[in-house]
Amino acid sequence: MRSGDDTWLVRESTLDVDHPAAAATVLTLSNGYLGVRGVLDAPVPGRGPGTLLAGVHEDHDHTYAEDAYGYPEVEERLEPVVDGWALGWSVDGAPVDGTAGAVHHADRVLDLRRGVLDRELGWTAPSGGSVRLTSRRLVSLVRREVVATRWRVEAVSEVTLTALPVPGCDHGEPHHHRDAPGVRTVACRHAADGSLVRQRAHRSGCVLVVRTAHEVTASPGVRPRWSEGPGPARLTVDLRAGQWVEVLVLAAFAAGSDADDPDARSAAALAAAREAGADALLAEQAEFLAGVWERGDVLLEGDPPMQQAVRYALFQVVQAAAQVAGVGIRAKGLAGTGYQGHSFWDSECFVLPVLDHVLPEAASAHLRWRHAGLPLARERAAELGLPGVTFPWRTISGRESSGYWPAGTAAFHVNADIAFAAARHVAVTGDAEFAARVGVDLVVETARLWAGRGQHTDEGFRIDGVTGPDEYTALVDNNTYTNLMAAANLRAAAGACEDHPDEAERLGVTEAERADWLRAAERMVVPYARTLGVTEQHEGFTKHARWEFGSAETARYPLADHAPYVELYRRQVVKQADLVLALHLAGEHFSVEQKRRDFGYYEPITVRDSSLSAPAQAVVAAEVGHLELAYEYARECALIDLSDLRAATEEGLHVAALAGAWTALVAGFGGLRHDHGLLRLAPRLPRALTRMAFTVLQGGARARVDVGPDRVAYRLVAGDAVRLTHHGEEVLLTAAEPVQERDVPPGEDHPAPDQPPGRRPVFDHT
Amino acid sequence: MRSGDDTWLVRESTLDVDHPAAAATVLTLSNGYLGVRGVLDAPVPGRGPGTLLAGVHEDHDHTYAEDAYGYPEVEERLEPVVDGWALGWSVDGAPVDGTAGAVHHADRVLDLRRGVLDRELGWTAPSGGSVRLTSRRLVSLVRREVVATRWRVEAVSEVTLTALPVPGCDHGEPHHHRDAPGVRTVACRHAADGSLVRQRAHRSGCVLVVRTAHEVTASPGVRPRWSEGPGPARLTVDLRAGQWVEVLVLAAFAAGSDADDPDARSAAALAAAREAGADALLAEQAEFLAGVWERGDVLLEGDPPMQQAVRYALFQVVQAAAQVAGVGIRAKGLAGTGYQGHSFWDSECFVLPVLDHVLPEAASAHLRWRHAGLPLARERAAELGLPGVTFPWRTISGRESSGYWPAGTAAFHVNADIAFAAARHVAVTGDAEFAARVGVDLVVETARLWAGRGQHTDEGFRIDGVTGPDEYTALVDNNTYTNLMAAANLRAAAGACEDHPDEAERLGVTEAERADWLRAAERMVVPYARTLGVTEQHEGFTKHARWEFGSAETARYPLADHAPYVELYRRQVVKQADLVLALHLAGEHFSVEQKRRDFGYYEPITVRDSSLSAPAQAVVAAEVGHLELAYEYARECALIDLSDLRAATEEGLHVAALAGAWTALVAGFGGLRHDHGLLRLAPRLPRALTRMAFTVLQGGARARVDVGPDRVAYRLVAGDAVRLTHHGEEVLLTAAEPVQERDVPPGEDHPAPDQPPGRRPVFDHT
Repeated sequence: MRSGDDTWLVRESTLDVDHPAAAATVLTLSNGYLGVRGVLDAPVPGRGPGTLLAGVHEDHDHTYAEDAYGYPEVEERLEPVVDGWALGWSVDGAPVDGTAGAVHHADRVLDLRRGVLDRELGWTAPSGGSVRLTSRRLVSLVRREVVATRWRVEAVSEVTLTALPVPGCDHGEPHHHRDAPGVRTVACRHAADGSLVRQRAHRSGCVLVVRTAHEVTASPGVRPRWSEGPGPARLTVDLRAGQWVEVLVLAAFAAGSDADDPDARSAAALAAAREAGADALLAEQAEFLAGVWERGDVLLEGDPPMQQAVRYALFQVVQAAAQVAGVGIRAKGLAGTGYQGHSFWDSECFVLPVLDHVLPEAASAHLRWRHAGLPLARERAAELGLPGVTFPWRTISGRESSGYWPAGTAAFHVNADIAFAAARHVAVTGDAEFAARVGVDLVVETARLWAGRGQHTDEGFRIDGVTGPDEYTALVDNNTYTNLMAAANLRAAAGACEDHPDEAERLGVTEAERADWLRAAERMVVPYARTLGVTEQHEGFTKHARWEFGSAETARYPLADHAPYVELYRRQVVKQADLVLALHLAGEHFSVEQKRRDFGYYEPITVRDSSLSAPAQAVVAAEVGHLELAYEYARECALIDLSDLRAATEEGLHVAALAGAWTALVAGFGGLRHDHGLLRLAPRLPRALTRMAFTVLQGGARARVDVGPDRVAYRLVAGDAVRLTHHGEEVLLTAAEPVQERDVPPGEDHPAPDQPPGRRPVFDHT
Repeated sequence: MRSGDDTWLVRESTLDVDHPAAAATVLTLSNGYLGVRGVLDAPVPGRGPGTLLAGVHEDHDHTYAEDAYGYPEVEERLEPVVDGWALGWSVDGAPVDGTAGAVHHADRVLDLRRGVLDRELGWTAPSGGSVRLTSRRLVSLVRREVVATRWRVEAVSEVTLTALPVPGCDHGEPHHHRDAPGVRTVACRHAADGSLVRQRAHRSGCVLVVRTAHEVTASPGVRPRWSEGPGPARLTVDLRAGQWVEVLVLAAFAAGSDADDPDARSAAALAAAREAGADALLAEQAEFLAGVWERGDVLLEGDPPMQQAVRYALFQVVQAAAQVAGVGIRAKGLAGTGYQGHSFWDSECFVLPVLDHVLPEAASAHLRWRHAGLPLARERAAELGLPGVTFPWRTISGRESSGYWPAGTAAFHVNADIAFAAARHVAVTGDAEFAARVGVDLVVETARLWAGRGQHTDEGFRIDGVTGPDEYTALVDNNTYTNLMAAANLRAAAGACEDHPDEAERLGVTEAERADWLRAAERMVVPYARTLGVTEQHEGFTKHARWEFGSAETARYPLADHAPYVELYRRQVVKQADLVLALHLAGEHFSVEQKRRDFGYYEPITVRDSSLSAPAQAVVAAEVGHLELAYEYARECALIDLSDLRAATEEGLHVAALAGAWTALVAGFGGLRHDHGLLRLAPRLPRALTRMAFTVLQGGARARVDVGPDRVAYRLVAGDAVRLTHHGEEVLLTAAEPVQERDVPPGEDHPAPDQPPGRRPVFDHT
């Protein structure tokens, strides 16, 4: 970015070369089913896995110091698979991927509009042979199985090149420790026209098949030749200065159980990709992304680095989600094995609200994956003695994989989060088929959980003994976020059954059950500290001792690395937005004045030791009149991985926070809220921006919102009409009157509260 | 018991022969330093370990599914050691301990006054050779290292006998897996005059040395001969019908690190035992026990099985405690490896209040062991970010060994329990040296914890985020038991500093600190549900949902085997007396009417899934007028292991519940309370008893209390005077007026509340 000014490109030069694993994460190409990290680059080989397939995980035994009823027995772990797309190049016998030899220049550029990673390397081998090696890689956002890479090597001096398909592939390693979990190569064939590798995870039974096809072209007079006879195929090319060779490698990855026949799917995908050809793959990739940007780009004027970061952020969100049918969106994308490749509530609360506007089919695919998990969630609820369903806190296959129940099993809000995402998806997209086939089931089954998990008392409907979003507190009574989201869940279920009486009958919902849901929602307890005038994160929270931070110099974060849960839990210290997230996602419950008081109370005790915190802080800060603080949080979200703000990017991307950048802008400065079918907007720019434009979807119709410092233009860009409010004033966009402009009303600027010592927003380390 | 009527004997015939491991536990001989289970008997070999030494444990890595700051890394485990006292007898080459051959009769009798286990076996080998084998074993209550066993074999027909010292000893096994934890034999010598075995726990460094000496005698004409040459020694004896041989084995076990020189201690102990001779060992054992019974026996008339059970219970409590200097009292005694041989708060809250009256030097030794653990407890507090000390929830060496922090680390009440035990010990024994050298340190350091762990608020001094005694609840605010015990702890510290100004100065206690303690104690929050008129187990407890038990037929216990913590914690269901324990141990805070209301509220939700529950239920039930229910609980305590009521006796004795039998009688029907130096008594018998007599100590003076249905006789038996109250009326026993009688005032009989379905007290399975 620094070396050019194109906000659609991300160059390696913006990245810290001392952290090659983090750079490899940042340059990941993925489609949510298949991920290829930007590894294997000279001069410093990127560390960590190269290729991840959402469908390939292994089961590992959980071990507990003290076991107890209902603890998950197995931890599912995403396991790296063979880098089937790779070629191992050597010059005069010396591998290019090494620290020997001399690097003249090295460049990697991620193109956010084309969806390709271009690499270029000028290298001289120890022999003196010198080459320029370039490649363009594409992980198809349209064909989930396909990676296409075109390699080109130009000789600067006379050299002998070799290329080994699938370098590092385990060629027939014997099986040792047959009972130990792990992914092993069970078949491996390499020939001149392509390769086949098959791997199997011993305990989970996940199978991976990757097939490749090679197409070799060269400048006139050059004679590339494949080795013959036994052993893996190897390409050898003799080049004189100025001559070149190109190898196009098409690879098709398919995963599943044997019953899913990954063999056949891999073969079919490869055949189709060959049939289409490389140019078509590039064209359809660019076309797909053109649609993404048309719907999703947030145009910013006044802050080019932020413009680039926001585009990068959305690009990675789309890459994490485009092809997740049957596999779900993962917290780290397919950009690393952090959090064992698990899906959490992050997807529903942070990612889907963005995808609903930008790539609704991906949001739908994720929720259909949750829907397919209903039987397991029902079994889990039964195991815990609860009605309805209990979705896993963290999972790959749909089974609960959490090994610490106070922050896993007890975080029941994940169920309300899924219901929220389903209801929101219906409201935004107007997808009637989804609503009837998927949405009703999700909201009804989760509503049944809440009806049984809570209880009516004189003071209202209580939900006790749960863990809210804040992981520095656990096992509390009446967590406000959980209660308000559960109330919304119960209301959504009642509404969905009213809208879909046939589905309600299929699910056995009676009028009495619906009435129970509405009564519980109506009577839901929301704890409030009257003397402070503050909503409590949970019942009794404000009675607790405060954390003793010390000074900015002595405070050590994350707190959980330096203090036990037993101290954190009993104090008023917040890891991540919890009550403040309720102010955003269940904002209709609060007046703006109450939100401001609550934000002012929680901000100084929120340490943001989770990347899930800043998005909600940005949105609520903007709403209550702290625009500049909100913008700092927005930047923190957008730059979290580009600047490796948490020194954890090597383990994968912070997909929820990246999505949060979009939310921070559109819900924060755009003021986007969804309120019972009404689209509310209240745009107001921070000082750093002179213009912000974006589109939003409502009931399947789309409006473009173009915000200046004083004036907002609304334009209908798809559908018959959009009904919205501008700072509370109703605006109707129709085909007859597609454009309307409004003034930005004068805003109140309230002094922003302080953060804990050493925890001001950080938005750029570079 | 059933076959005779001597309540001082426990015969094997009262035990379930289908559960040899439980029988082996019941017949354990121990002194708290060394334990020998009643294993290795024909016809069914007892399972499980034979010999346990308090000082021999091994360190095992804790494994956590999700690790976190401050989790204990190591679990200490009591490990069985070599059965150095044993002889392996064979008849005509067939081992007597087998299932082959024919058993004519088998008998084991534990003698509660002599402190010996007598065995007798009539056996015919497969060869037809027939013998009568008897043994008398003693684990010295006076000499901690010593086990003495006299074996006698009489030939019924002509036989060839062999006896192998230390059968099963690992004779020089090579070391495999050097880094794996475990206790291994590192030296092993067997000769005609005795054996030496040395074992070492690889990781903890604990060393065991056992030396034995053999004395062989035989009827005239019999020539016992020891094998010669290499290999372990073996005794061979040819007997004709009517001839006999006797072998006395003296064994001395010593444990410790190399620096403790267990070699020398074992040698010295063996030499001293040989010097004294077997008869002296028997005599000093009987003399020791005569003192125990004089001080501790609770004479009961009207219920002989209960009389036997109560004597057995106290015998095992004394055996668990007699020689615990440096090692502490274990929850399971040295009768099994249950709970990994750990010490818990059981010792301070259940066992020491009995030992204070019966064997005060053992109570003192246990508390001195805690005192020696102060440095580790201080380190642990610092690790957790707390002032003062935090004693371990479960431990052998003094390190925290708990692997589940919500029920371990968070159960801070263990610190107040230790302070309580120290203060009580001083009050009962009047031991001034202990008070100054041990007591002050324990109460001051724990008071400092509470001062820092709680906080003043408008409503009072709060202690948040702790776990009380009830393990079906965790991480609560203002647990009443914890708060009241902490208040007593703070007051005890202030009082001890007033009494011992020099010690206070040594500990750096200022007047301001003392004032802070008293203010915190004064302002301690005790949550109370006004609308119910009930003291809350913790803040908000009575707002929770009740457990859905179903019927007595469908209820399944223990609940934790059938339901997750996440459900148990959020409900009003109580594993073990918690608020009810506060009614007992901090009873001065409550009126009798309040106690009756509270008992009535908690009794139907207390499932007694812990053996620690019944003692407090017995005491409080008696106090509030449910005498018959109290007696059922007293019987449950006394018979817990004799009748294997929990089907867990094979893992060791329930020492706290056994001690609770004494407490249930003396504090329950005797009404014993200690109230600021005043001894309060309020005797009243249940219908089953016509007489109950016991002695109590107060400030070093002792009184005997002899209770009939209508009349109580008080008698000074040691010391200058005892000041007590009889149902509130003051009684002064002096040398001049050593005996006084009083009428039992008419009692109120209140209908007792119900227990949860299927949880009426169980007092006899036989």
